[in-house]
Amino acid sequence: MGETGSVAGTRVGIVGTGWMAETHTEALRRLGIDVAGVAGRTPERAREVADRLGLATAYDSVEALVKDDSLAAVHVTSPNDVHAAQAAAALRAGRHVVCEKPLGVSAAETAALVRLAADSGLVNAVCFNLRFSPHNHNAAGMVRDGTLGEPRYVTGGYHQDWLLEETDWNWRLVAERQGNLRAVADIGSHWLDLVGFVTGRRVVEVMADLHTFVPERNHPLGEVGTFAGHAVADDVERVRERMTSDDAAGILLRLEGGVRGLCSVSQVSAGRKNRLTWELNCARGSLSWTSEEPEYLWVGHRDRPNETANKDPAQMTRLGAAVTGYPAGHVEGYPDTFRGLFAAVYADVAAGRPAATPAYPTFADGHDVVLVCEAVAESAQSRSWAPVRRDTP
Amino acid sequence: MGETGSVAGTRVGIVGTGWMAETHTEALRRLGIDVAGVAGRTPERAREVADRLGLATAYDSVEALVKDDSLAAVHVTSPNDVHAAQAAAALRAGRHVVCEKPLGVSAAETAALVRLAADSGLVNAVCFNLRFSPHNHNAAGMVRDGTLGEPRYVTGGYHQDWLLEETDWNWRLVAERQGNLRAVADIGSHWLDLVGFVTGRRVVEVMADLHTFVPERNHPLGEVGTFAGHAVADDVERVRERMTSDDAAGILLRLEGGVRGLCSVSQVSAGRKNRLTWELNCARGSLSWTSEEPEYLWVGHRDRPNETANKDPAQMTRLGAAVTGYPAGHVEGYPDTFRGLFAAVYADVAAGRPAATPAYPTFADGHDVVLVCEAVAESAQSRSWAPVRRDTP
Amino acid sequence: MGETGSVAGTRVGIVGTGWMAETHTEALRRLGIDVAGVAGRTPERAREVADRLGLATAYDSVEALVKDDSLAAVHVTSPNDVHAAQAAAALRAGRHVVCEKPLGVSAAETAALVRLAADSGLVNAVCFNLRFSPHNHNAAGMVRDGTLGEPRYVTGGYHQDWLLEETDWNWRLVAERQGNLRAVADIGSHWLDLVGFVTGRRVVEVMADLHTFVPERNHPLGEVGTFAGHAVADDVERVRERMTSDDAAGILLRLEGGVRGLCSVSQVSAGRKNRLTWELNCARGSLSWTSEEPEYLWVGHRDRPNETANKDPAQMTRLGAAVTGYPAGHVEGYPDTFRGLFAAVYADVAAGRPAATPAYPTFADGHDVVLVCEAVAESAQSRSWAPVRRDTP
Amino acid sequence: MGETGSVAGTRVGIVGTGWMAETHTEALRRLGIDVAGVAGRTPERAREVADRLGLATAYDSVEALVKDDSLAAVHVTSPNDVHAAQAAAALRAGRHVVCEKPLGVSAAETAALVRLAADSGLVNAVCFNLRFSPHNHNAAGMVRDGTLGEPRYVTGGYHQDWLLEETDWNWRLVAERQGNLRAVADIGSHWLDLVGFVTGRRVVEVMADLHTFVPERNHPLGEVGTFAGHAVADDVERVRERMTSDDAAGILLRLEGGVRGLCSVSQVSAGRKNRLTWELNCARGSLSWTSEEPEYLWVGHRDRPNETANKDPAQMTRLGAAVTGYPAGHVEGYPDTFRGLFAAVYADVAAGRPAATPAYPTFADGHDVVLVCEAVAESAQSRSWAPVRRDTP
Repeated sequence: MGETGSVAGTRVGIVGTGWMAETHTEALRRLGIDVAGVAGRTPERAREVADRLGLATAYDSVEALVKDDSLAAVHVTSPNDVHAAQAAAALRAGRHVVCEKPLGVSAAETAALVRLAADSGLVNAVCFNLRFSPHNHNAAGMVRDGTLGEPRYVTGGYHQDWLLEETDWNWRLVAERQGNLRAVADIGSHWLDLVGFVTGRRVVEVMADLHTFVPERNHPLGEVGTFAGHAVADDVERVRERMTSDDAAGILLRLEGGVRGLCSVSQVSAGRKNRLTWELNCARGSLSWTSEEPEYLWVGHRDRPNETANKDPAQMTRLGAAVTGYPAGHVEGYPDTFRGLFAAVYADVAAGRPAATPAYPTFADGHDVVLVCEAVAESAQSRSWAPVRRDTP
Repeated sequence: MGETGSVAGTRVGIVGTGWMAETHTEALRRLGIDVAGVAGRTPERAREVADRLGLATAYDSVEALVKDDSLAAVHVTSPNDVHAAQAAAALRAGRHVVCEKPLGVSAAETAALVRLAADSGLVNAVCFNLRFSPHNHNAAGMVRDGTLGEPRYVTGGYHQDWLLEETDWNWRLVAERQGNLRAVADIGSHWLDLVGFVTGRRVVEVMADLHTFVPERNHPLGEVGTFAGHAVADDVERVRERMTSDDAAGILLRLEGGVRGLCSVSQVSAGRKNRLTWELNCARGSLSWTSEEPEYLWVGHRDRPNETANKDPAQMTRLGAAVTGYPAGHVEGYPDTFRGLFAAVYADVAAGRPAATPAYPTFADGHDVVLVCEAVAESAQSRSWAPVRRDTP
Repeated sequence: MGETGSVAGTRVGIVGTGWMAETHTEALRRLGIDVAGVAGRTPERAREVADRLGLATAYDSVEALVKDDSLAAVHVTSPNDVHAAQAAAALRAGRHVVCEKPLGVSAAETAALVRLAADSGLVNAVCFNLRFSPHNHNAAGMVRDGTLGEPRYVTGGYHQDWLLEETDWNWRLVAERQGNLRAVADIGSHWLDLVGFVTGRRVVEVMADLHTFVPERNHPLGEVGTFAGHAVADDVERVRERMTSDDAAGILLRLEGGVRGLCSVSQVSAGRKNRLTWELNCARGSLSWTSEEPEYLWVGHRDRPNETANKDPAQMTRLGAAVTGYPAGHVEGYPDTFRGLFAAVYADVAAGRPAATPAYPTFADGHDVVLVCEAVAESAQSRSWAPVRRDTP
Repeated sequence: MGETGSVAGTRVGIVGTGWMAETHTEALRRLGIDVAGVAGRTPERAREVADRLGLATAYDSVEALVKDDSLAAVHVTSPNDVHAAQAAAALRAGRHVVCEKPLGVSAAETAALVRLAADSGLVNAVCFNLRFSPHNHNAAGMVRDGTLGEPRYVTGGYHQDWLLEETDWNWRLVAERQGNLRAVADIGSHWLDLVGFVTGRRVVEVMADLHTFVPERNHPLGEVGTFAGHAVADDVERVRERMTSDDAAGILLRLEGGVRGLCSVSQVSAGRKNRLTWELNCARGSLSWTSEEPEYLWVGHRDRPNETANKDPAQMTRLGAAVTGYPAGHVEGYPDTFRGLFAAVYADVAAGRPAATPAYPTFADGHDVVLVCEAVAESAQSRSWAPVRRDTP
């Protein structure tokens, strides 16, 4: 663990008042960072959350927050449609920025944001937190070290069930706030980023099929938190709404260096609460990991017994050990991934600028996943393979 | 178990001398069926296998075997390219026929075989044995009973590693004997049949990507048994050969009734010895099964705890209990799937003709999977969605 | 698999008409052995079972069966109280004998039987079939090879739930037929034998606590099959009966060579259908196996990743590979353990006498477990450590 | 999560400079609590840790820390032999106290501490953090609600491997600092507390066997951190030392209300990094949990499928949901157990005194486990059952 001395006391502001605001607050505090306050849609909502979390300041507006010169950094945890604008405002105000995924709702806006961040010289990070479950870093280290030979084939997916029922609702179901993809953008993006990180290869071409299994939903009037949709009171007024966004998707993938893959994404898989899995077959061995059992990394071999490695810093690659906070068998879960991510980010914040090769996902990484998602949408629309258009100016 | 009295003593002949010949022999004997003898490529090979397995007769040829009027049925376990011709010969000789999968190497030949079988009035079965792992029947029963609502989305795959190395070899790598697809035809066919059986829906359209990760292999001169390729002696002469068949494949699927799916097939996934998995998301619940842990069926729920059902005849659907031979917790494995399959087949053999709705996969089912495989090949070739051409005369 | 040629056609008779009679019949038939007939409590019951299983002969009595000189061997699958007498009768008639566990209900009778068997020169085996789940042989091989250092500590247990309810019934609940221990004798005996086999060490001292959690049961008048108690019809007459035998037990163990252990045995653990587990900690590594997931052997290491070995004959010890019938990933379950056991036994039957070191559990092994069980009963009674009294004449 | 507003800003001091000091610091910070400083064996060591963790104050001594009136509470994370004296000093200074387990090295000192705490009216807690893995609270809730009927039988254990080698060392191996029991006191105490919590029953009698599998160790001169023993540099001077404390133990248990049990404890089980398991069989169902896969609670049933419940606040008992911080499928691991424990403790700290029924383990609970451990030692010594002597004045 340890080594938080250098960042302790750094002041940070949070944009957003949902459960991600809480998750970020808690993870920042673990590092001794001072979460100064929060801004939301209204001053009242900000006050309520500030009081609940014991934060000193409830900002009147996002503008007020980003202009607070006592803040070293700003975290953007609002709905997707305002990520890019808020992140840009914070960068322009001179703040380092940590933004929730997706970085934006179009590649146009995220491309602009990447340029702005690069020009600013400020630390910029996007919350692909799952990279920081220690075995994901460990796996990336094994691939980089060449232990198992060249990566060839990567499969898996991300399944949830919180949008299974037609009575489930969340702002992610509103196209203007989520963007035009839903399951793929919301959770598929995690899988795509993670697999890119572990393999060290970028997706270059996709063939996708998008599925809307719940054709109509009851839209409750008023705001509904993530993972809370099925708890909306029965007497809230609802309107029937036709759905067009993806409940689920299947994607064939071609990555750099001849790597091939496929993934499945779904938010309507009853019983799968939050299950991301991946399996990577390399020329001499395989790796597999499952988010609901993060203590273990499966390592497959052809001619000797497969391994089920504990999260043991003494046995991991350097890359894996570097993000491991607790001894083997002391499970590090979901909250710990934010701790690891923020520890990496704030080492750069303490240095005042991004490292030459940042140890965390940057805006450039966030933009890249948006490009892949746009290729997914294009492919599903055209029923054909679509390239990831990285050459777009 | 039980109830084998009616088939005990039935005489059967086996075509083929590989490990499937042994597997069939053993499963037939469990039912009290008399495995009379075996025919192979040469009389010598047949004699060797007959002696090893304690079979009375080593036939001089396949022709001699199918013409032995003391035999009620013939099992075809030879390489794929001769399945259709041998099955046809046996039908013409008046034998009931059990044929290993795939039923043939082209839809043209399997279509003809289906017609021949129908005209013959004889029992015809194809060895999609995995249906008979009890939980697969149990799952099919749950879908038919509507317990979990309409099927929507099915994912999974079949991964092995016995062809990982360029020094691995088997007749399946020879296109003339295997057919033009390899991993998809050999093991993907099991997954496709199984998912069709469990969902009760046929595949209507596919989008596939085929991968040849091992571009060249060392071809040892001489025959090499399945799962035995890496054990070929070092001093056997080998020739370098360019490979074009699929080591692995990703397939997007559209099934009848709006069901969508995707599957991954690979014979080069280090550490995956023989792992078939499927997950079926229905409107109100999910099911999942893994071949290496057959005792359990996972049943996913949104609003109550997920279940991990033991293979318990007292708790299964009627369909599941009917093929369960042992009490809960007494694991039934791979050999037991053949026992269950043959028990179903020989009930019809004892009756002298197929039931109106056979309780086992028939030649029609075998043909249907060949049609899907041809669509897979067409799709991969054209890089576009391809329909399953069931209307072909 | 293979190599059944030498035993094919050997004629065998079965004493007993319960599900073990069926299980033995099926496993013998897999090897090509001719199950000639069956004897039961009445000629009618024998006829019914013979017809159902397709056996030629229903013997009028056990006496008639053992005296049939066409039989090479006799299998004893009747209730415990008659095992010893029937096995003795078969030996005296010159038959090789395979007896279900426990070998008898007292060490006095099993000691006599061991002497009789030794004097006879005939093959004698007791059905500790679980040794023949391939990974158990594999583990024994690893211990004998010294791969993981000296065995030190062995833990685990055997839990079932088929006697949970006070309405559950079976002959095992009748002390005169089962013997004075129940859960320990019925399933604890499997665990004790298995751990002795894997470690290569005998139990020398025990400290036990026996539990009767269901103090009274409803005894249905009439016979009730194993694992079938909860299916007894509601209208069968029942009498209330006070229970004194062990539903469950905890046992501390001291084994030869300084090995220590403990085990838990229960037939009243809701949800545990038939779950045997053991973990063996050696000086340099550990092993663990669970009966409901027999494909995997866990191998624990201190300074490198733990392994989860598939049942792969190519990777196993010689001892493990020798009893493996199918390739890796092709799960071998409960029925296969009988196949493996009988293959070993009938190799000796074919030779006409026991090998110098039989490859299967003998009557001597069966007697040894009865001695341990008697020590368990003595310990529980006296609330103190009790030695295993092997010196008793 | 949430609701940390009321405790944010509370000032706390930490006694001890090992990894527990860091673990506590991080968990306290998550709640917004102000970890003011640390005291260690020397001012230099305190300074080093304070700097590394970003704490403002390095106290010159434990005395100086406990007398700092700005502190509301003191956490004791030093070696076992000084727990009781330091906790007493903090209570006498008017601080609420959170003490690591075990509460002390003898029942005499812990009994006195319980009285002192009761007289003080201050909040007192002992760090049996594993209760706060949400499913353990959930299970306790199910037992209290009677969902599965009366508890009957509890089994399991706690295995680690960090003291496997004779070159492993830690202060726990020094009897004067650890107390006379080692594995049982260090990790067995967690299991005993947890099982008492889940069942709601106290242990009343034990029968134990203690094992010293590593008879001699190399004692490096100088301090060695927990879980760090195998990383001691090779050139550190070492002395050979005879060991008498328990590497492992087997314990038979009798609990209140007729509950029976057994547990296994070991710190020399190669490959088991930190694995606690328990299974509780009740009259109508069972529960089981494993620390390395905390997301799932297994719920066993006799006549319907077993469940594998996710950590889902929407599906848990009230008791379980109350300590759950994140949605289902978002794994909460080891660090989260401290967060949950401290959230409960600091609700009472905010109130200024313990609740009538504290929601966390108190000094009385810590003392009770010490009493059980003393019975374990007595039983092993006398080789007989020993009562837990709660009547001692």
